[in-house]
Amino acid sequence: MEYSCSAYELKCNECGKRFGNRAISGCPDCFAPLEIVYDLDAARGEFTRESIAAGPANIWRYKRLLPIPDGFQPDLPVGFTPLVKANRLGKRIGANNLYVKNDAVCFPTLSFKDRVVSVALANAQKFGFTTVGCSSTGNLANSVAAQAARLGIKASILVPADLEPAKILNTLVYGAQLIRIDGNYDHVNRLCTLIADEYNWGLVNVNLRPYYAEGSKTVGFEIAEQLGWRLPDNVVVPMAGGSLIRKIRKAFKELVYLGLVEDKPVKFFGAQATGCSPISVAVKTDSEMIPQKPNTIARSLAIGNPADGPIASKMILETGGWAEDVSDVEIVSGIQELAETEGIFTETAGGVTTAVAARLYAHGRISPDETTVICITGNGLKTTDAIADRYEVGRAIRPRMADFDAYLKELEGASEVEPELALAGGVREL
Amino acid sequence: MEYSCSAYELKCNECGKRFGNRAISGCPDCFAPLEIVYDLDAARGEFTRESIAAGPANIWRYKRLLPIPDGFQPDLPVGFTPLVKANRLGKRIGANNLYVKNDAVCFPTLSFKDRVVSVALANAQKFGFTTVGCSSTGNLANSVAAQAARLGIKASILVPADLEPAKILNTLVYGAQLIRIDGNYDHVNRLCTLIADEYNWGLVNVNLRPYYAEGSKTVGFEIAEQLGWRLPDNVVVPMAGGSLIRKIRKAFKELVYLGLVEDKPVKFFGAQATGCSPISVAVKTDSEMIPQKPNTIARSLAIGNPADGPIASKMILETGGWAEDVSDVEIVSGIQELAETEGIFTETAGGVTTAVAARLYAHGRISPDETTVICITGNGLKTTDAIADRYEVGRAIRPRMADFDAYLKELEGASEVEPELALAGGVREL
Repeated sequence: MEYSCSAYELKCNECGKRFGNRAISGCPDCFAPLEIVYDLDAARGEFTRESIAAGPANIWRYKRLLPIPDGFQPDLPVGFTPLVKANRLGKRIGANNLYVKNDAVCFPTLSFKDRVVSVALANAQKFGFTTVGCSSTGNLANSVAAQAARLGIKASILVPADLEPAKILNTLVYGAQLIRIDGNYDHVNRLCTLIADEYNWGLVNVNLRPYYAEGSKTVGFEIAEQLGWRLPDNVVVPMAGGSLIRKIRKAFKELVYLGLVEDKPVKFFGAQATGCSPISVAVKTDSEMIPQKPNTIARSLAIGNPADGPIASKMILETGGWAEDVSDVEIVSGIQELAETEGIFTETAGGVTTAVAARLYAHGRISPDETTVICITGNGLKTTDAIADRYEVGRAIRPRMADFDAYLKELEGASEVEPELALAGGVREL
Repeated sequence: MEYSCSAYELKCNECGKRFGNRAISGCPDCFAPLEIVYDLDAARGEFTRESIAAGPANIWRYKRLLPIPDGFQPDLPVGFTPLVKANRLGKRIGANNLYVKNDAVCFPTLSFKDRVVSVALANAQKFGFTTVGCSSTGNLANSVAAQAARLGIKASILVPADLEPAKILNTLVYGAQLIRIDGNYDHVNRLCTLIADEYNWGLVNVNLRPYYAEGSKTVGFEIAEQLGWRLPDNVVVPMAGGSLIRKIRKAFKELVYLGLVEDKPVKFFGAQATGCSPISVAVKTDSEMIPQKPNTIARSLAIGNPADGPIASKMILETGGWAEDVSDVEIVSGIQELAETEGIFTETAGGVTTAVAARLYAHGRISPDETTVICITGNGLKTTDAIADRYEVGRAIRPRMADFDAYLKELEGASEVEPELALAGGVREL
């Protein structure tokens, strides 16, 4: 299964060999990951600020630098999510120039995975796969199921058995076949490598992975455009497989090369949960990545042996950035901080990113006045179990003014007694 | 509490008296609802296709025809949600030219209420309210809580005691005060009318209601712009308070008046749940609206005595449209149909709209070739309880190829036995 294309092709990261466009996950010679490379000079004059502004308000405005087969007519308005100035969160964590890139409201399934899946499925169709699928920690499952449904392609999705209920339901509702595996993501992923070969399925993050991963570049393109065509000083990115952080950097480099933004140093900061922190540990100890057995509430980041982990950790240090990991308690606080200050409800992965950002400022790794973007990659409604027990629902009162007056006095009294607890986002008795 | 403004002001729907800009819910003389009126001729030349295209990719591009106080700098990128061509859903329900306006991914809280709240809170700040709030069936609660958090304003929110868990959590997480009322929405709403006066709070859908409601026009503006500056033949809109459907029409009329679109007849179709169908019954019997006691899983539409119900029902008939209501079972099927065909996961209200649309085509109320837009107003992750028991999660298998092969055979065998059930979106055994 292959197709020819003059604009881009696969290239081995290690040995440099080129492969045209085929459904393979790694270099058959040296087993290294493959990367999509473009004839960037040919794109000059076609990928400009003006041509992009004339495009639709979604990721397809950047189509010229995505591996999209000739003739593909994208009609799903994925991405172009808000970049919001986060003054109130900034004040709380000591940041004067902070932005949130909010993929918690990404179309269609509320995570950045919608970007990668739409690029992968464009290729799945071109390669002629009649069944698509993935190994997933949840968000990818949702996105593959939804987008395959819209295209009328069969989807078969493999997940760790302990996935959150909302993510399971949000896969089944699209009519996808969901297969639960008794093991963690790394077990699921290994199984999928075998399945892709045996069944000739298009698994977006296995044999379509090089195409899939390119979709993440759109986060970087959007950040630069939404900042008024300039690069930030710092980017804080959650890390599961380690691909997103790399691809944002690739996007920035392409923009610099083509003259859409001015070149400047950008530091990349990676965020993980302490319960699954192979990349963050590698960065902090400046050593080879050692796989871990995941144990964290941030299940969407629970990849113990991330495919792009080694490259990501090197890249982070190369840019002068850093990585951090936070405990499950801090993850929940991070979710609450972001909601209470910016009105953005994120899933556990976003709690990781927010809490890590707070620590980076606290430790002086990021200077307060620098322009910093934190990437929120998924929606809080997908992981409500992680925080539900932090909130107590108060008793119901009768719809009478006297009852309301009395109850309000009770509430205000209670909040006066424990003002610090309230501020810290602790348990609320309502 | 009032402010002066040359661009717009309050006017009584009944007696025509004008009130400037004040925080009041109805006409103090005749108790009728108030409406925002504009000097439309003054807007000519300022509200053009070009000026709109030059604006941001959110509702603020239509600011000139929203009641936004001078000097207000909107910085929250609300709205401009996808309008997607729905070919697969269309095929299933007999529609050849169907679009879905998808507010299930609206920023920041995944419902169309984000539009109205942002306009209301701009005015709440102008009026100087230090506490804001609302009576809500859920989506409004989420949006007020989130947007008030971002503005750093205190929010106090009243809801019926039986609200869905996800909507309660998605209010508390922003740090809002949530007060549960032992009663239905109409009880809550009456109580709020008293509270607004006694406490001098800015309740978005009570004393800020005329401003709030105008935010819904942006759905109409966006539909017209996203169709390439033309009006559809039909719009299918869910009805709770009855405001959204009216305001979409108001938006279309303003666009026609200012010459942004060509005038043409547009039929409006209202969708309700049978368990709370005061407006739909009024339309179908061409009679006065009679309040109902709600009993439906579509809790976000469960308003038994809708404020704008009488006007909405008259308006629907005036346009040559119709209204329908569907049972709870059909609502669930509607959710599944939309998810399985278009990859859009909507809440119960969207299930209502989808199922009603299907019936309108089946009954010949809408012709197959006409351009029809159905408005999906909220996200499925907010009402997972309504459909969770329709799906059975299969057993977990070991991460071995042999186990996978055997399990897949089982699944494929099972789906061959019950093909009709699978197609009808029934219970799946996975």
